[in-house]
Amino acid sequence: MTTAVLEALFAELRFDADGLVPAIAQQHDTGEVLMLAWMNRESIKETLAGGRVVYWSRSRRALWRKGDTSGQIQHLKELRLDCDGDALLLLVDQVGVACHTGRRNCFYRAVRDGTLAVIADVEVPAEELYGKG
Amino acid sequence: MTTAVLEALFAELRFDADGLVPAIAQQHDTGEVLMLAWMNRESIKETLAGGRVVYWSRSRRALWRKGDTSGQIQHLKELRLDCDGDALLLLVDQVGVACHTGRRNCFYRAVRDGTLAVIADVEVPAEELYGKG
Repeated sequence: MTTAVLEALFAELRFDADGLVPAIAQQHDTGEVLMLAWMNRESIKETLAGGRVVYWSRSRRALWRKGDTSGQIQHLKELRLDCDGDALLLLVDQVGVACHTGRRNCFYRAVRDGTLAVIADVEVPAEELYGKG
Repeated sequence: MTTAVLEALFAELRFDADGLVPAIAQQHDTGEVLMLAWMNRESIKETLAGGRVVYWSRSRRALWRKGDTSGQIQHLKELRLDCDGDALLLLVDQVGVACHTGRRNCFYRAVRDGTLAVIADVEVPAEELYGKG
């Protein structure tokens, strides 16, 4: 990762007032949309340098090295940006499950038949992801 | 579309300070991520009622009935929300191209080999999408 491409990327990105852009994580081979999270300059830099996805946690106001606690890390395959530079698409290889509920992806609720339906099962129990503490 | 499911959905959604949530549009059969845009309550209501995707344009500060000008409309197949209710995933059937540049999707720039590369061609010229006016 050279400084030049980072500078080119940052020049094209339109960060919001908090210095963030939304990032979509998509499983690179199946096309499954796993989650949406947020990145700032530092998390983008660390992600491109290390090859492992790092977000910015808006609730904790800190870098969020996904998988540090749960082990469910995301290996970066490719980082793309959109036409107006205000969104990122991360093609990743997800280890285990992406969602903190233990489901493979976070979009497990859908409007179906006039109700809000749960459409995916928990694959890994939360106590397995985060311990029993 | 009943009022009950809208109320259930709105109760689960965490809109930002501007009353918006980010919405990912994904081609329902191929899994291609087409674009990311924003929705407010009114655009969600109209989308679910009409079956055609309506966003909120942050630049124009108005409902954005995608395709009104270009003809490149999105038919809604399913609306999903994520675990913490701050993002939507729209499974759609995209007519033509999603991107205003005339490319199929908006994520046509990628970090590759230390540069920012254009990885998709224009499929429909802009003057065809928006007229020559």
